[in-house]
Amino acid sequence: MSAVTKAVLAISGGVGGAKLALGLADSLPPGKLHVLVNTGDDFRHMGLHISPDIDTLLYTLSERSNALQGWGLADESWNVMETLEGLDGDTWFRLGDRDLATHLWRTGRIDRGDKLLQITGQLARQMGIESHIHPMCEEPVRTTVHCEGRDLPFQQYFVKEQCGPAVTGFSFEGIAQARPNEQVMAGLNDRSFSSIVVCPSNPFVSIDPILQIPALWQALRDNQAPVMLVSPIVAGMAIKGPAAKMMAELGVPVTALGVAQHYANRYPGLIDVFVIDVSDATLAPEIASLGMEVTVAPTLMRNRQDKQRLAKIVLDLVLV
Amino acid sequence: MSAVTKAVLAISGGVGGAKLALGLADSLPPGKLHVLVNTGDDFRHMGLHISPDIDTLLYTLSERSNALQGWGLADESWNVMETLEGLDGDTWFRLGDRDLATHLWRTGRIDRGDKLLQITGQLARQMGIESHIHPMCEEPVRTTVHCEGRDLPFQQYFVKEQCGPAVTGFSFEGIAQARPNEQVMAGLNDRSFSSIVVCPSNPFVSIDPILQIPALWQALRDNQAPVMLVSPIVAGMAIKGPAAKMMAELGVPVTALGVAQHYANRYPGLIDVFVIDVSDATLAPEIASLGMEVTVAPTLMRNRQDKQRLAKIVLDLVLV
Repeated sequence: MSAVTKAVLAISGGVGGAKLALGLADSLPPGKLHVLVNTGDDFRHMGLHISPDIDTLLYTLSERSNALQGWGLADESWNVMETLEGLDGDTWFRLGDRDLATHLWRTGRIDRGDKLLQITGQLARQMGIESHIHPMCEEPVRTTVHCEGRDLPFQQYFVKEQCGPAVTGFSFEGIAQARPNEQVMAGLNDRSFSSIVVCPSNPFVSIDPILQIPALWQALRDNQAPVMLVSPIVAGMAIKGPAAKMMAELGVPVTALGVAQHYANRYPGLIDVFVIDVSDATLAPEIASLGMEVTVAPTLMRNRQDKQRLAKIVLDLVLV
Repeated sequence: MSAVTKAVLAISGGVGGAKLALGLADSLPPGKLHVLVNTGDDFRHMGLHISPDIDTLLYTLSERSNALQGWGLADESWNVMETLEGLDGDTWFRLGDRDLATHLWRTGRIDRGDKLLQITGQLARQMGIESHIHPMCEEPVRTTVHCEGRDLPFQQYFVKEQCGPAVTGFSFEGIAQARPNEQVMAGLNDRSFSSIVVCPSNPFVSIDPILQIPALWQALRDNQAPVMLVSPIVAGMAIKGPAAKMMAELGVPVTALGVAQHYANRYPGLIDVFVIDVSDATLAPEIASLGMEVTVAPTLMRNRQDKQRLAKIVLDLVLV
C-alpha cells in the first residue's frame, strides 16, 4: 500500500463493526482510518454518561477489549459492582472497575462543557489509538425500541431485557436536531476518503441512527468515494446481537438480501458494493438487481487474520 | 439506661463529629440516636453526587470507615482511580472502588427524583445502621470558602488545595431557600429529643451551614431540650481538619473560648452547656461569662472507649 493512500471512512456500531474496524486499522497506514460511530445507544446511568459503541471501538482498537465476553475490558475487576450488589443497587448494566474510569473521565469532561468529538479524540490518543474515532454527532440522540405494547430505551431493551421483547419499530429521539460530526463532514467535503465502508453492524439500531442524521446519507452518496457494505447477516444468522431476531419480528427476510433491501429502500443510491458471505453466494443476483455491485467473500471474523483478510478484500475493491 | 430513654439529636459534620456520634450510638438504645448532618460540602464530581459528611457518618456508624486514613472505607481497593490516573483524569478527590458504589447508588436515586432523606435512610439500613442519619436539607447548599483574592468551592479548598489558602470568610449558596430536614423538625416539634448535642465539628464549614438554614437554630433554641456543644478546639489545636488554621486566619482566638464566642455571637441563647477538655479548664470562667454552663471532661477520642466515655458524660448532663 503506497504512502499516498487516502483515508478510509468506516461507519460502525459496536462489536461487529469494531471487528472490521480493527482489520481496517491493521491494513491501512497509521492514522488513515476514520470511524463514524453510533451514539444512539448512549445513556446516563447512575450519573455517568455511557457511550457503549464508542467504548467498544476504543477498547477494540487499543486491544483492550474482552473478546470472549464481547463487551468491556480484558483484565477487568468488579469491586464496584460487587459492592453495589451488596447495596441492592442497579447492576443490570455491568460496569467493570477499569471501564468505570472511562465513564468517569468522559462524564467529567461533558459536564464541564467539552465536546464529545474532543473527548473521544483525547481518550483514543490516551489509549494509544492512531485511528480516528468520531461520535456521529454532538447532540443527544436516543434510540427507543418499540416493542409490543411498550417502548423501551435501547439499553433497557438490549441489556436489561436481553433483547427478549418482540420489536415493532425504532425511533431516534433528537435526531432531527442532530448535525453530523463536523470532522467527518469536512472530510467528505474535502474528498479526503478513498472509500466508505459500512461495517457489519445492526442495520436498525447501529447504522440507521447514523444515516438518519439529516443530510448525512446524502453527503455520503454525493461524495465520489464508493460506499461498500458488509452484510451483518450470514447464512440467515446475525453473527452477534439481535439483528436476525429483529428482522424476523419485523417480517423482513432474515438474509443478506433482506439487509440489502433495507438499505435500497431507505437510502436509495447509497450502497455501491454489497459484500456478502460465500455461504450466501446464491443471493448475489437478486441483490445485484437492487442496483448494487455484489462481492462474495469469506466474511466471518473469528480471529485477527480473518479481520485483516476481510479488510483487505474491502479495501482492494476501491484501491485498484 | 431505661427503655423509655427519649431520642437524642446530634448535629455533625464529618470525621470529628462522627466519632462522637459513634460513641452516642453505642451509649443509647438502638434507634435512639438521630444525627443531623452537613451537606454543604456535597458536590457533583465526574457526574456523581458526593455527600462526604453523610458518607463519613454512614461508614463510621457501620464500622466500615478507614480510621487511620480519616476518610473513606477500610478494606478499600483503588482499581478505578489507578485506571483514571492512566487516562490523566481528575484524581485529586480519591474515590475508592467500594466508596464509588455508594456514590453511584445515591446518584442513581437522585437522578430519578428520590429525596436525600429517603436515600440516606435506605443506605443506612442497607449498611445495618440503627441510628438515623438526616441530611440537613433537600435543597442544594454549597459552601464557598473565600480566600485572599479568590473564592473556592469547598472540596477544592479542602481536598485539592489541602486547606492551603488563607481564608477570609465563608458563604453557603442556596441556604436562603433551604428548609431544614422535615424529620428532625417534626422531632423538635414533638419534643422527641431529650437532648441536642453539637458534635466537635468545624464551626465554620460543618456546623454553620446547618444552623444557618433559616429557622433551624431558633427551633433548636426554642425546644425545651438542652443543647450541649463539645469544643472542636482542644489546647489551642483542632484534633482534625482546618478549624484552628481558619480561626487564626480569621483573627479569632484559637481556643475553646474563641469557639464559644463564635456560637454566643451567632446563635445567642442556643448553647446551654459547653463541654471543654480538661486541658482547657482555665478557660471555664470566661466561657461561663458568655452565659453557658461549662463542663470540663476528657474530650480526646482516640479509641472506641474514649468515644463511649465522652458520649456518656454528655448524655449524663441531661439524663440526670
